[in-house]
Amino acid sequence: MTSTLIRGGRIITAVDDYHADILIENEKIVSIGLNLQPGANCQVIEASGMLLFPGGVDCHTHMENTFGPSVTADNFKSGTRSAAYGGTTTIIDFALQNHGTSPLQAIERAQSKADNVASIDYGFHVIITEVDKQVLEDMRYAIRHEGVSSFKMFMAYPGTVMSDDAAIFQAMRMVGQHGGMVALHAENGTIVELLIQEALAQGHTSPRHHALTRPALLEGEATHRGIKLAELAEAPVYFVHLSAKEALKHVVEARDLGIPVFAETCPHYLFFDESSYADSDESDSFDGARFVMSPPLRSKEAQNALWTALKTDDLQLISTDHCPYCMKEGHLGKINQKPLGANDFSKIPNGVPGVETRMTVVYDGGVRSGRISLNRFVELMSTAPAKLFGLFPQKGTIAVGSDADIVIFDPNEKHTISAATQHSDVDFTLFEGHQVQGKVKKVLLRGELLVSDDQWVGKTGQGRFIPRGEVGKW
Amino acid sequence: MTSTLIRGGRIITAVDDYHADILIENEKIVSIGLNLQPGANCQVIEASGMLLFPGGVDCHTHMENTFGPSVTADNFKSGTRSAAYGGTTTIIDFALQNHGTSPLQAIERAQSKADNVASIDYGFHVIITEVDKQVLEDMRYAIRHEGVSSFKMFMAYPGTVMSDDAAIFQAMRMVGQHGGMVALHAENGTIVELLIQEALAQGHTSPRHHALTRPALLEGEATHRGIKLAELAEAPVYFVHLSAKEALKHVVEARDLGIPVFAETCPHYLFFDESSYADSDESDSFDGARFVMSPPLRSKEAQNALWTALKTDDLQLISTDHCPYCMKEGHLGKINQKPLGANDFSKIPNGVPGVETRMTVVYDGGVRSGRISLNRFVELMSTAPAKLFGLFPQKGTIAVGSDADIVIFDPNEKHTISAATQHSDVDFTLFEGHQVQGKVKKVLLRGELLVSDDQWVGKTGQGRFIPRGEVGKW
Amino acid sequence: MTSTLIRGGRIITAVDDYHADILIENEKIVSIGLNLQPGANCQVIEASGMLLFPGGVDCHTHMENTFGPSVTADNFKSGTRSAAYGGTTTIIDFALQNHGTSPLQAIERAQSKADNVASIDYGFHVIITEVDKQVLEDMRYAIRHEGVSSFKMFMAYPGTVMSDDAAIFQAMRMVGQHGGMVALHAENGTIVELLIQEALAQGHTSPRHHALTRPALLEGEATHRGIKLAELAEAPVYFVHLSAKEALKHVVEARDLGIPVFAETCPHYLFFDESSYADSDESDSFDGARFVMSPPLRSKEAQNALWTALKTDDLQLISTDHCPYCMKEGHLGKINQKPLGANDFSKIPNGVPGVETRMTVVYDGGVRSGRISLNRFVELMSTAPAKLFGLFPQKGTIAVGSDADIVIFDPNEKHTISAATQHSDVDFTLFEGHQVQGKVKKVLLRGELLVSDDQWVGKTGQGRFIPRGEVGKW
Amino acid sequence: MTSTLIRGGRIITAVDDYHADILIENEKIVSIGLNLQPGANCQVIEASGMLLFPGGVDCHTHMENTFGPSVTADNFKSGTRSAAYGGTTTIIDFALQNHGTSPLQAIERAQSKADNVASIDYGFHVIITEVDKQVLEDMRYAIRHEGVSSFKMFMAYPGTVMSDDAAIFQAMRMVGQHGGMVALHAENGTIVELLIQEALAQGHTSPRHHALTRPALLEGEATHRGIKLAELAEAPVYFVHLSAKEALKHVVEARDLGIPVFAETCPHYLFFDESSYADSDESDSFDGARFVMSPPLRSKEAQNALWTALKTDDLQLISTDHCPYCMKEGHLGKINQKPLGANDFSKIPNGVPGVETRMTVVYDGGVRSGRISLNRFVELMSTAPAKLFGLFPQKGTIAVGSDADIVIFDPNEKHTISAATQHSDVDFTLFEGHQVQGKVKKVLLRGELLVSDDQWVGKTGQGRFIPRGEVGKW
Repeated sequence: MTSTLIRGGRIITAVDDYHADILIENEKIVSIGLNLQPGANCQVIEASGMLLFPGGVDCHTHMENTFGPSVTADNFKSGTRSAAYGGTTTIIDFALQNHGTSPLQAIERAQSKADNVASIDYGFHVIITEVDKQVLEDMRYAIRHEGVSSFKMFMAYPGTVMSDDAAIFQAMRMVGQHGGMVALHAENGTIVELLIQEALAQGHTSPRHHALTRPALLEGEATHRGIKLAELAEAPVYFVHLSAKEALKHVVEARDLGIPVFAETCPHYLFFDESSYADSDESDSFDGARFVMSPPLRSKEAQNALWTALKTDDLQLISTDHCPYCMKEGHLGKINQKPLGANDFSKIPNGVPGVETRMTVVYDGGVRSGRISLNRFVELMSTAPAKLFGLFPQKGTIAVGSDADIVIFDPNEKHTISAATQHSDVDFTLFEGHQVQGKVKKVLLRGELLVSDDQWVGKTGQGRFIPRGEVGKW
Repeated sequence: MTSTLIRGGRIITAVDDYHADILIENEKIVSIGLNLQPGANCQVIEASGMLLFPGGVDCHTHMENTFGPSVTADNFKSGTRSAAYGGTTTIIDFALQNHGTSPLQAIERAQSKADNVASIDYGFHVIITEVDKQVLEDMRYAIRHEGVSSFKMFMAYPGTVMSDDAAIFQAMRMVGQHGGMVALHAENGTIVELLIQEALAQGHTSPRHHALTRPALLEGEATHRGIKLAELAEAPVYFVHLSAKEALKHVVEARDLGIPVFAETCPHYLFFDESSYADSDESDSFDGARFVMSPPLRSKEAQNALWTALKTDDLQLISTDHCPYCMKEGHLGKINQKPLGANDFSKIPNGVPGVETRMTVVYDGGVRSGRISLNRFVELMSTAPAKLFGLFPQKGTIAVGSDADIVIFDPNEKHTISAATQHSDVDFTLFEGHQVQGKVKKVLLRGELLVSDDQWVGKTGQGRFIPRGEVGKW
Repeated sequence: MTSTLIRGGRIITAVDDYHADILIENEKIVSIGLNLQPGANCQVIEASGMLLFPGGVDCHTHMENTFGPSVTADNFKSGTRSAAYGGTTTIIDFALQNHGTSPLQAIERAQSKADNVASIDYGFHVIITEVDKQVLEDMRYAIRHEGVSSFKMFMAYPGTVMSDDAAIFQAMRMVGQHGGMVALHAENGTIVELLIQEALAQGHTSPRHHALTRPALLEGEATHRGIKLAELAEAPVYFVHLSAKEALKHVVEARDLGIPVFAETCPHYLFFDESSYADSDESDSFDGARFVMSPPLRSKEAQNALWTALKTDDLQLISTDHCPYCMKEGHLGKINQKPLGANDFSKIPNGVPGVETRMTVVYDGGVRSGRISLNRFVELMSTAPAKLFGLFPQKGTIAVGSDADIVIFDPNEKHTISAATQHSDVDFTLFEGHQVQGKVKKVLLRGELLVSDDQWVGKTGQGRFIPRGEVGKW
Repeated sequence: MTSTLIRGGRIITAVDDYHADILIENEKIVSIGLNLQPGANCQVIEASGMLLFPGGVDCHTHMENTFGPSVTADNFKSGTRSAAYGGTTTIIDFALQNHGTSPLQAIERAQSKADNVASIDYGFHVIITEVDKQVLEDMRYAIRHEGVSSFKMFMAYPGTVMSDDAAIFQAMRMVGQHGGMVALHAENGTIVELLIQEALAQGHTSPRHHALTRPALLEGEATHRGIKLAELAEAPVYFVHLSAKEALKHVVEARDLGIPVFAETCPHYLFFDESSYADSDESDSFDGARFVMSPPLRSKEAQNALWTALKTDDLQLISTDHCPYCMKEGHLGKINQKPLGANDFSKIPNGVPGVETRMTVVYDGGVRSGRISLNRFVELMSTAPAKLFGLFPQKGTIAVGSDADIVIFDPNEKHTISAATQHSDVDFTLFEGHQVQGKVKKVLLRGELLVSDDQWVGKTGQGRFIPRGEVGKW
């Protein structure tokens, strides 16, 4: 039996903060204490001066994701390594229900992409694009027997993945009765599509029109609608990538009443705002394409409101919506990337990278700036996603019996973020040149080191599919 | 070196939930792990099938408290034993600033009452009744050098303890700058006093008029005012015994904006409502006097709102406001108790017992009923009060390095609450006859057993004054 | 030149209240004064002790309206007479855009039904069911050249008249730029339809299931959505037959911000509530069909909120949504009436009569009960609809230069409402048996008597199409 | 019998807008009609092209008002002339209850100042400074027998006029039962006083510290408190000179619920903001003293909110709080004016002139700018104050039977406002140099011309005390 002892670190959980040693055996934490003694064959990792966090859980990534003709720059191999370097040891990615197929087939196909390739643990939300009696039945089955208990639906993108209100309501009601939850992309897609076509018809083709045709008000409208459908369905609901103050307002109102409404935001909404488009506009280049994600960046005022909501728990998690497309065609052989939309913003594949920078930028910009506490940081990065999405206590904490997913983090080391030193296959990061303090030094997945002082020491395919339990519990 | 091993229990913290053994040495938890081995001279406590909670922290008790001519039925000896039987290992009681004296003298006097008598640990809030330059300076000193960082002020009881807005604002501003916090009793005392005098003048002397002369609207008004004063002072504020929906509304609004406003409610507001007065009225007896506390019991609708707010974290803690006066004159030699107001409700000493029943009734009525989770229960009972009032991580959690204050709780044992089997010197409990499931079996204070299977095994005077650090952090 | 002098009445406008004589010449009021002298050939009407109101304006009626296989029991002849008896001298009815046709054709067809038949003045809202570039252009034309400046669109009834969000948004934006306004039927039709099909599939066929499948929450959702679309379109919006507290909330919020959102409610929502369905359910008869209108009757709490909103001007008008279908098949030869849905509530034609009772029941239940003032009554019945829908000052007031549409009303006369004594071709009234005080005694349309002491003295075809100006002004 | 005919004007009331002639006899309007013929001895005033407004009603003026050692620059003679030039024909001024005296004596004393001197009609609010049983009784008497039905109380100015909550509550309750209303100056005076003393102690003596020591939050707090006291008293309440967004919020909330809460704002809050103090600060002069009124000028954002509230009827009137003190000592012999506070802002008498500019600036800045309609202008200037304060229909409208108080207003004439051409005894106007369009041309009080084309043609003492009826009706 191999064992590992992490010695002398400062353990941070969503609630605790203390110094102790951690003993790991058979992938699990078996003991936490003062002056623990390593047995024979015990690997000892010195962590004095280091913070120890539970491994990050990122609930929103798109590895090898197809968006029209484009596929994201990261597959499960490159993407999960990139995640590991950033301190994330579990992701929940997506399984797309194709036209005329079952959610169960979607899960199978997604697993086949990740199995034997992923370096960290993973689960899936199924993207539901069609609802009928059999699909609803298969969703129930997925929750009960497949460990897949969350389902994403789109209120945007008519003609491809958008669901109408009746489909969403039926799905919510079914999964709500069986411990599942629907996650919504909330924008009024019907109006967005109209605005896009009008903008293009008027010759507005540059990236910033992506933002102008997706106004905050339409995210607010859809968020309100989604909440009301969930209330009627007596089911919990989760909003992905909440960005607008107009949307947040409805989440706050519902939560004040104890209605089970949950929402994530993403690092890009916390550190960038709509002025980024203006900059790119003035330079009259295609540069703004890097900020083309949906929803788009919002106002500075909205950004402040998001930070407040992270503190007040009106937002419960920070996911990345990691969905990278290269800025240059052909980078590492990737084609049909951002330049697809060089002459038509609506053709720019939507999405940005982020899985590797999440913990670092939130630590630096959230904890060090005093916006959130260290405990809250861990809660946002790991505990809340694990609890909300049915991975706890296997994931999301440092406690006896939990998976030994541990991040050894140096709170003092300063460094500069750059795509050049990252491990994704994409060719840019929004945080290029950002100087930050706090660095992921070592990362353990179930007791095995994946990353050690910037070196990859893990094994491809080390990651496992993690069946999940009940989701959407307050 | 003596050590204790608690074996096989299910450890619950505000975030975690797992099975492990706990090893205690020198008052502290030194190790938590699977299959820990007792050393020599190690006391072993079997806890299989039991829940292990961190010792309860009750932030609002009145031991040996003087209210006009009356003194509460419990002194620090009887009161802290009663608390221990209920699973509470730390209380924060009060030190009253008498006319013309310093807050520092108040602390000294309070300590002299508790020292060598208390069976559990304790701290004090100073009740500030007069503010001037020296008093403000002494408050700063108390925070920095005495480990007393919270101060209670009254917006009610004109002529005795009520402070005007300027005094409250000055106190808030001073303590806010030094890591302290003001706790407010929020009722518009000026109007309450007028209503009392008018009621008495009209011959309304029975206990239920206590409630009628303290309408919820006046708690709402004072709560709003207190929040605004705190905002202006750029200081945190804490509301004791919040009972009214009208008050809660303002707390919710402020917290939605991230303003540091905190509030407790009490078990009596969660399990009783204003209909209790009607009952006592019909029987035309003095019986309603048992429900004479301030604020009084509110509507059923308010009660539901309080439960929701406990779930949404708009209320952060449940304290008891344990302030017992006997229903019968002369019980255990206590005089000037509730019967003082037999012919004039305004003379009934305000207060009810509760320190022994807090954890039991909230477990039964909160956790078992599904209103709050087991983790949230621990947060409300122990972690949140410890964090908010500067006792964490010494108190408030089960973690390596923390005081070994541990409650061993049987979640299955059913019993009936009765004053006859309680340990307070008061002669009644509001929960008389309530059948509950879940029972405190053993209680350890810093590793020493106080209570074991209904037997007192602790020592008088075992409790210590605990200096507190910064309070009022979100 | 014929002239008329109304002598000695008490004139009530939306703001004034005074005694004076009114001199009428050539359809218009030419003088208001004390002791006016009748000239030669002057008809003198004594009105001492009477209240004089401006003629009622009912903005929401459905004469000769087709709903599936059914046609409303009243055509413009019977319906406008019924209105006149109730003190209403102007209606705004509907012109339905049929599939593949222009709004302009709809107007023409509606006019052909009313011309030479209507006994009171009238205008039309066009019901828009399809939007394309030409339709939008024709709407603009209708506003500018046809005196038709309001357009109704449905968020309910998928498959027949429901519009999607993009159609509504485009219509709002176009008409908003040209002084027009969209009126919305706000219910989430997609979900309602699903609920109906599910109810029927479960064998729930009785009338009360009409109400159960149209929950208030879905009116709230659609109302919020409609407001947001209007905000984005920078256009005013009007909500017809607002009934739910959940909908009102959004109207109030928008109006507090000065956003041009308007709404009517209807007498049936003010005097009946959902308990009516329960009654009909118990008797196990088809009787509940009389209460089948959309939206359905709501809670008592909602009813109180509507009354408050009428006082606070959060609701601006009371229209009838007069849309009568007989309870008995074959009454006056009408077929395909309510009994169509005897075995399937979804086949019951939606609608109730009301055009004759509006002023009487609101006077009795609103003014006499003290809920609204006499001036507010006139504002709700006449001035506000005239102003909001572009008929003012020709209609909506008693002032020099305005059309002499005047109701002579006895505030003291008591009577009992009954279908038997009404003048609609429908066979029931919701107010059957209601005893009220206050009675319409005489009604003048442009100076000509239509009704005098329960006698019809008007002429068929006396009514005129009134071109309307800008609508939707606050 | 003298009579007057105003010919050809465009009559504007709070609801109507039409062309007609107005015939006046015995102070009253007797006829309004087309082509009215003047009788013998009838004065004819041509008003073609002119707007005719009902005479302005200004509910908040301070003529010959004592504030500490200072008396306002205008007495009833100069002040009412100034008002008349501005189109105001009725004011409600104040009668101060001196220490130890009755409200009835206050009324008598105030009347003795105005009688035979005022050129326009007037009434009084009594300023209540002490409440006991007799005072309450005298208030009741004043309502019933003296035509004085409104009472002002101060939540500010401790030590002079401030009342405590119990006094305010008792007064509200008493007058609410008898058709009266309390008007509140809402600022938390206790805290303001503390802030003033602290500012002075720190050497902050310049005028802008007046504003800094009266933060908007404290107006918000007091406004909330005032509303709650009124709710408890089941009485209406009126807020004078509402300036802060924080205060408005509470008024809006209450009014949304139909609670009888009313409020005025003043022209200075609508046209100036806190940046005025900054300007005066930079120039390091005493110039900022002209902006010393209470509450002080607020943010630009607050200003916009006030305009919105005027449109939405959340604010019901615009009064001037005309309370002029000269900027130069000795102007027209006035002493103890603004310069009193040259070295101590707290000694600057609080107040600004405004009675002459009210209608002009609101017409120009409100109607012409499109913020409010012409009807709403009349409602704000005349109808609403007359209705709310029990003067209607004698005052506040142009209708048969009402007092012939009429303003003939040229909507096209442009002019520049200047103290030099005004008629107050004060030496400045905040609007100095403002170029406006729209000018008061002639003003009639009960049929008699006071002002005609900038000439004074009225008689001193022409004004009358107007007993008022019930106030505070929604």
